[in-house]
Amino acid sequence: MTDLVYLDNASTTFPKPDCVYDVMASFYRENGVSPGRSGSDLAVAAGMMIDETRRILHKLFNNPDSDHKRLIFTSSATEATNLAIKGIACQGDHFITTEVEHNSILRPLYMLKQEGLIDYDIVPMNPETGMIDPIDIENAIKPETKMILVNHGSNVIGTIQPAEEIGQICKKHNVLYLLDASQTAGVIPVDMQKLNADIVVFAGHKSLFGPCGTGGLAVGPDVPIRSTKWGGTGIKSALRYHPDDFPQRLETGTPNILGISGLNAGVKWVLEQGIENIHNQEMKLIAQLIDGIENLEGLTLHCPGIGHDHLPVLSIAVENITPQELTTRLDVDYNVTCRSGLQCAPYLHDRIGTSPNGTLRFGVGPFNTSDHIDSAITALTNIIEEAHQRAAGAGSA
Amino acid sequence: MTDLVYLDNASTTFPKPDCVYDVMASFYRENGVSPGRSGSDLAVAAGMMIDETRRILHKLFNNPDSDHKRLIFTSSATEATNLAIKGIACQGDHFITTEVEHNSILRPLYMLKQEGLIDYDIVPMNPETGMIDPIDIENAIKPETKMILVNHGSNVIGTIQPAEEIGQICKKHNVLYLLDASQTAGVIPVDMQKLNADIVVFAGHKSLFGPCGTGGLAVGPDVPIRSTKWGGTGIKSALRYHPDDFPQRLETGTPNILGISGLNAGVKWVLEQGIENIHNQEMKLIAQLIDGIENLEGLTLHCPGIGHDHLPVLSIAVENITPQELTTRLDVDYNVTCRSGLQCAPYLHDRIGTSPNGTLRFGVGPFNTSDHIDSAITALTNIIEEAHQRAAGAGSA
Repeated sequence: MTDLVYLDNASTTFPKPDCVYDVMASFYRENGVSPGRSGSDLAVAAGMMIDETRRILHKLFNNPDSDHKRLIFTSSATEATNLAIKGIACQGDHFITTEVEHNSILRPLYMLKQEGLIDYDIVPMNPETGMIDPIDIENAIKPETKMILVNHGSNVIGTIQPAEEIGQICKKHNVLYLLDASQTAGVIPVDMQKLNADIVVFAGHKSLFGPCGTGGLAVGPDVPIRSTKWGGTGIKSALRYHPDDFPQRLETGTPNILGISGLNAGVKWVLEQGIENIHNQEMKLIAQLIDGIENLEGLTLHCPGIGHDHLPVLSIAVENITPQELTTRLDVDYNVTCRSGLQCAPYLHDRIGTSPNGTLRFGVGPFNTSDHIDSAITALTNIIEEAHQRAAGAGSA
Repeated sequence: MTDLVYLDNASTTFPKPDCVYDVMASFYRENGVSPGRSGSDLAVAAGMMIDETRRILHKLFNNPDSDHKRLIFTSSATEATNLAIKGIACQGDHFITTEVEHNSILRPLYMLKQEGLIDYDIVPMNPETGMIDPIDIENAIKPETKMILVNHGSNVIGTIQPAEEIGQICKKHNVLYLLDASQTAGVIPVDMQKLNADIVVFAGHKSLFGPCGTGGLAVGPDVPIRSTKWGGTGIKSALRYHPDDFPQRLETGTPNILGISGLNAGVKWVLEQGIENIHNQEMKLIAQLIDGIENLEGLTLHCPGIGHDHLPVLSIAVENITPQELTTRLDVDYNVTCRSGLQCAPYLHDRIGTSPNGTLRFGVGPFNTSDHIDSAITALTNIIEEAHQRAAGAGSA
């Protein structure tokens, strides 16, 4: 069997830098106790590690709040979007979101509308450019609009939205602004002050190189977010109600120090390498991939505006073969891993005309090489040629 | 510095068996991709590992449901209690719980009552026996009672409640029954069929020896539990609403395969050792501890009914020194780690008269030795004698 070519880094980055595995293994073996639940040396060390990770991420997102305790850890970006939406929504609120979104934004809004709590509008994406027009967002604002939720960078087609312009609109209309940075954190700058974002949601296990089971949100100052999960906090245990202090307001239960120690190592690794350096290298590989496959017969690239201001993500569709068959063949015959389907972004696929089968998506990471891309090009070329021959044979039969 | 004596295993077990660290390190390094998001070999292996862990836990709890997919993973027992309570509660429902409970049960009920959604009653604990009287629960049932929530074993005083008798009452009155097995899973049998439990909540990182960041709930057949977190599920991505299928109904976002691989190894280790064997060994150490400290001047044991049917947990209070000072002295001067305070169980401490400072709690685990207990006895003896001398000096000054 040939070596694995992993090109599904947009789902989760793999492998992680060695330091992530190493830190998790040693930290949890040596300090795997419950921070904040006792004052022992081990518990203090675990608590300090969590606090340091908060500070690093608070700074990474350039949160205007003076208090890094508004950097909240969750078990995933999905938990973070749910927390942000349910922690903000009040009866009669109106939300605005976009066709670019992931189901982790779309489904909470849908479910809360079904419950009769809120209403919302979905702003269209231009299928040619893969972009949201900020004017459409501004036009959708109503007096009762509470929050605008925007996918910073698409997990399907890799386009990066005009987050700063949208932030200016939110500021002008005094509307909260949630930026879903699941795909962008660690890839391009996510600067809450520059973008005027009130809440940034991040995944820990993607381009911040932490493990699965980590994620969170950065909450800006004066954001009226309520707790939605209640329990033990290690402080003020006598209170009948859940404490209002950050981070306990939004964090409860025994913290995931194993995962957060890995995230700590991952973010430090990203900062050492330089976000820009990693991104440049990944985009070169995407360019190589496009160069190698764009002229294949019946292949459509779904990567509008590809270039530097783009994520290292490439979706394709091919005549005569479904994305599902493509990924299976790539995996079974060539040991190339990528992802087919709707990638949890159904409105986007409806808009670009790739529903219900979706696309085949490549996601490049920092441990991919030019050889990996060559392998993927060769494999794809062979599979697509065979598919066309088969189709031609079926047609003439 | 002397070797660490870790006696805070009731917060989180530490260390874990070597196999837990080893499996996590190797599994995540080799298979750390997103299961259910592609059909690659690695994704399939990750998916199979999760499925196997579901099966093992489904069987451990003897869930009457034929489908192990109702074994749900969460990021903590607290997330599991929140999910169970919010996923069950409807407008006007009445719940019954007990004074033994942890804040992860008490606070969700309090918050939902504040929201005007539900009402609830808290059944008293007998402070002499540390037990709930099932008759009190039966007497609290109203026509609108939806669910009874009971702490299977106390994290403060170690008493095990008459879970089977309470289950009979729930069955008789057709009321749902949630058993919080955070402290008992892996320590004593938790048999949903025998106990008539509809939902069992468990912590992964306590006596099942998984890492922090793991927990879950076993959901019995015909339990009307709704999803409370919505997003990507890797299936049925085109649906506007969150799918109803188990486990996706209650699980969303990228699964924590790192944590679940550790939980898999931890539960297998417990089953190999034998739950009864581990428990017997731990209770011998608790008996040794009691024997060594029960006659210390001014010391009160809070472990009613101590004996075989008890968790390896012991709370104490001492005249002339707070639990907080005791743990600090034990830690700083003797490298003995235990836990002081209310242990997130404020009603219980009110009832036994130990609020607001709470108690000093010892929690014994399978890697504790007789030497550890001797060290703790010596340390405690010295600290308490000094405290009394200091108090006498202050009195005569």
